[in-house]
Amino acid sequence: MVDMLDQSVVFKVICAVGLFFLMQLMFFWSNLENLDDKKLTIEAEIDTLIRKRDNLQMKSWELQKDIHRMELRLQQIEEKVRDRLPLADSRRNLPTIYFITPTHYRPTQKADLTRLAQTVAHVPNLYWIVVEDAEATSTAVADVIRRTRLPSAHLHSQTPASMKMNDTDPSWKLPKGVLQRNAALNWLRVNFGSLKRGVVYFGDDDNVYDWRLFEEMRYVKKVGVWPVGIVGGLLVETPILDGGKVSSFNALWKPERPFPVDMAAFAVNLSLVLEHQDAAFSYNVPRGYQESHFLTSLGLARSDLEPKANDCRNVYVWHTRTEKTKLISSEKSKFIRRDLTDLELDAVG
Amino acid sequence: MVDMLDQSVVFKVICAVGLFFLMQLMFFWSNLENLDDKKLTIEAEIDTLIRKRDNLQMKSWELQKDIHRMELRLQQIEEKVRDRLPLADSRRNLPTIYFITPTHYRPTQKADLTRLAQTVAHVPNLYWIVVEDAEATSTAVADVIRRTRLPSAHLHSQTPASMKMNDTDPSWKLPKGVLQRNAALNWLRVNFGSLKRGVVYFGDDDNVYDWRLFEEMRYVKKVGVWPVGIVGGLLVETPILDGGKVSSFNALWKPERPFPVDMAAFAVNLSLVLEHQDAAFSYNVPRGYQESHFLTSLGLARSDLEPKANDCRNVYVWHTRTEKTKLISSEKSKFIRRDLTDLELDAVG
Repeated sequence: MVDMLDQSVVFKVICAVGLFFLMQLMFFWSNLENLDDKKLTIEAEIDTLIRKRDNLQMKSWELQKDIHRMELRLQQIEEKVRDRLPLADSRRNLPTIYFITPTHYRPTQKADLTRLAQTVAHVPNLYWIVVEDAEATSTAVADVIRRTRLPSAHLHSQTPASMKMNDTDPSWKLPKGVLQRNAALNWLRVNFGSLKRGVVYFGDDDNVYDWRLFEEMRYVKKVGVWPVGIVGGLLVETPILDGGKVSSFNALWKPERPFPVDMAAFAVNLSLVLEHQDAAFSYNVPRGYQESHFLTSLGLARSDLEPKANDCRNVYVWHTRTEKTKLISSEKSKFIRRDLTDLELDAVG
Repeated sequence: MVDMLDQSVVFKVICAVGLFFLMQLMFFWSNLENLDDKKLTIEAEIDTLIRKRDNLQMKSWELQKDIHRMELRLQQIEEKVRDRLPLADSRRNLPTIYFITPTHYRPTQKADLTRLAQTVAHVPNLYWIVVEDAEATSTAVADVIRRTRLPSAHLHSQTPASMKMNDTDPSWKLPKGVLQRNAALNWLRVNFGSLKRGVVYFGDDDNVYDWRLFEEMRYVKKVGVWPVGIVGGLLVETPILDGGKVSSFNALWKPERPFPVDMAAFAVNLSLVLEHQDAAFSYNVPRGYQESHFLTSLGLARSDLEPKANDCRNVYVWHTRTEKTKLISSEKSKFIRRDLTDLELDAVG
């Protein structure tokens, strides 16, 4: 009985222990399977991450390629505009040249103004003030100015009949452009405060201006002066220097004038024009004294002259004239009566 | 004994089974620990990958920011050059204008050439052929040409003394520029094969050329023709059209000429010049027949004329002349002897 009991107890114990271990085993197995699941999940996660990393790397390469392409394009563009943009940027701060052109009705007016317009069109910071000797401004002149795309003012001021020359008068008989230049000066005084930096130059419509002249005059402090070609019977009329200062002039005509120079020979700082409200040209001065009168009325003396154009060794402006037009008499009277066809109007304004 | 044996056997079995399960258990434990290690490794790997992904994402954002910045910069640059680059790009394929300028020594030569140079300097695809009436080319003219930065040829050909006019002769007494224009034509024939596209135009150094004229002549197929301002006693000399074709001319001077036009009134396709090797200007033609002789020698008839400039309704060229220089006699003889100071040389070449 004890044996039987003993045996059954031993058997039960064995079963219990066996069962315990079996369950333990199953528990572990299930745990292991869970871990396998987790492992799979993690592996999938890693795969995803690796794929994402690869995608990102690819995207990054493409972006870098884009950047390289854009850098090349930028380089090309910058090469193309190398000579232009720095110029345009630096142009903004240049002092303005107020280029005053008196002009009057004649057969070559439109031709001369067209040629002058094409000369000044590419000069940086040039403000073109065109003053017609007329009752009103004309469309022909306005068109020529407009095509330059320059900042500009188009004025008019009529010379009284008593001060106008006949066709047969010699060109020096009466002063020309007096009222027109004064109109431009007054326009500057009304429209520009003293804050504006710039220089004022009187440029007739049939002279020749080398582009380099404009850079010579741009930084004039008071009054700049330089040689002029073909004027006053001379090949060149020029200031003569002594120790870097203007000591005299080679002018043949009235060398005793305070400033024996041509209108094209000087430019003055805008501030002087604004400070001297009354400075002007005048009919009440002896022949040939327009320049001297104006410069004196700005409070200037010879010692104020700043020689330009390589110390007056270069010629950048010529006092050329366009030949008087030879017309048959019927054409001449048509022109004077302004009885013109559309084509003739296009030719002579 | 059996009992004892039984009991010891049972005990041994129990121990064996116990040991077996214990070892199994230890095996699983060690496996589990390994798995934990693996898990840690994998987690670290995931961390690294996540960090890498974040870094890549950051880098990608920065690259995108860079691209955005560069796009803005590109846009700014392209805005700045909008009006310029398309022009420059399209210029490359334009037909070339071979602009032939005969010129001779006189006080205003340098001034006139300077002004003309500044007119043509900005014309796209213009090839400037300057022919001096001289024994040799001069430095003054070479300097003026060089400053335009245009492609150019600088030639010379001297008019024989018998064909030269005196100072007092009227300007129409003898033909001017005959040998110089021929020198340019022959230069073109020697230097350009038939592959070159272009148009040939004779442009004197004191005429006025509106920039728009050059676009009028650029695509001429055989010979283009247009009005000229201030020539032959008229305000405008012009072809007269009938149904879009040139039927006659308003010329006063010898309207019976095959082509009663001024030298500035036409341009011919380069191919004609190359095909007609003998076409030229000549001293052996009646006064005023230079243009007609040349056009006829190119095999052209009036019916070949292509009206330009808005069907000859606009004037883009004027036959202006620069006024003869008035010099005092000492200056005049200095100029003729070419006994000039450096400054005078700079003024008149």
